Amino acid sequence: MPSYYVPKTFTVGETVRLSAEETAHALRVMRIEPGERLTLLNGQGGRASAILLDDGPTRKIREASCRIESTEIVPRPQLSIILYVAPPRNKNMDTVLKSATELGVARIVPVICRYAVSRPDASAIESWSQTLVTAMKQSGNPWLPELDAPQAFSEALTYSDEDGFFGAVPQSDDLQASDFPYTPDRLSLWVGPEGGFSPEEEQALRKKGLLPLTIGPWILRVETAVTALIGSLLTQFH
Amino acid sequence: MPSYYVPKTFTVGETVRLSAEETAHALRVMRIEPGERLTLLNGQGGRASAILLDDGPTRKIREASCRIESTEIVPRPQLSIILYVAPPRNKNMDTVLKSATELGVARIVPVICRYAVSRPDASAIESWSQTLVTAMKQSGNPWLPELDAPQAFSEALTYSDEDGFFGAVPQSDDLQASDFPYTPDRLSLWVGPEGGFSPEEEQALRKKGLLPLTIGPWILRVETAVTALIGSLLTQFH
Repeated sequence: MPSYYVPKTFTVGETVRLSAEETAHALRVMRIEPGERLTLLNGQGGRASAILLDDGPTRKIREASCRIESTEIVPRPQLSIILYVAPPRNKNMDTVLKSATELGVARIVPVICRYAVSRPDASAIESWSQTLVTAMKQSGNPWLPELDAPQAFSEALTYSDEDGFFGAVPQSDDLQASDFPYTPDRLSLWVGPEGGFSPEEEQALRKKGLLPLTIGPWILRVETAVTALIGSLLTQFH
Repeated sequence: MPSYYVPKTFTVGETVRLSAEETAHALRVMRIEPGERLTLLNGQGGRASAILLDDGPTRKIREASCRIESTEIVPRPQLSIILYVAPPRNKNMDTVLKSATELGVARIVPVICRYAVSRPDASAIESWSQTLVTAMKQSGNPWLPELDAPQAFSEALTYSDEDGFFGAVPQSDDLQASDFPYTPDRLSLWVGPEGGFSPEEEQALRKKGLLPLTIGPWILRVETAVTALIGSLLTQFH
């Protein structure tokens, strides 16, 4: 059953309105009837069960209203992963964003690397935000990942303050996550573009204390690297 | 640098021909010139360095020939993963196939489950084979995953003989891969369709001794589940 995004604080007994898009989906696609239950997510850990109210003829309703019956706050994942990723071409960036949301990444920072294949404009970023909301609703994850504006590599690295890893081009000195000295509550994962990080970028990542990480000996596409390495980190540090 | 697929045994000094597709890619897309080196993969662990021979004017060559200069056999991965997967819709199945190849899966068995969203026909399977070859060349993995014909769930389960896991809809009794009693050299991973395994299918998987596995508490799409769970298995059992 799909859920609906309402970016508000939920209070039992209160009435909230669905956006025009969410209304169209609930009433015209899912054909939910007045009196039926739906699940609302606010993107900040809030989940609510709500009853659709009767606002008149379905086809005339622009913003449907519903009454909140019960609410809960779902705790944040124990491990906050901050994903720094060089955006692959658009369809593939959607895969990255969906996977990151399904796997509970806390924050996504698009990073413009030397060997970047795509330079996102404002419409790309708007579309990425929508992809995150869709993925949140489909996966049931009530924590919408934060999405930063794209940043130059050096700027992103300067302001990052988490320990973590970079991947995933095979390298002879690759460490395993198990070499990590303690169980962290925040980790960064840096994944470069198709062509990899430049030698200067890799040196800067190492100098910052980030550790190389990969899975298997072969070349991974950006979207495979992101998903498999998050799977690896969550397995090591759960 | 891309590699080229030549499904033959490689012997130093011998001349081999590229297929028409590989020839078009090498000569017309990559513009490789006679005397230049290219990497050949045979899909069976064989990797060769070869020199492109001079067969006359480039645009007339249908099947370019090259002479093998050196060869090696890349060992199989230590852990053989057999992926049983309910094919998602086509574009998403491509993601599954590419990830599985990049991560070194040994064999892929498309399984028709009760809640299947797609019933592959012959043209789908032909296109899947091509996707595997493309992924092999791009990732540099010289082991082309075996691709079985699609099988009914019960048939696939009856003939499977590996220990392993099924995923990835969150379940309260989920085990971790670390609960596995020994370090296996073969493992199966079963990933169901969008709607999940049916209750009967899940019961049959458990009865066969397969263990439930997931990552995080949210619903994963098939392609996310495949990639993240392989990442998890390779991290646990490397």
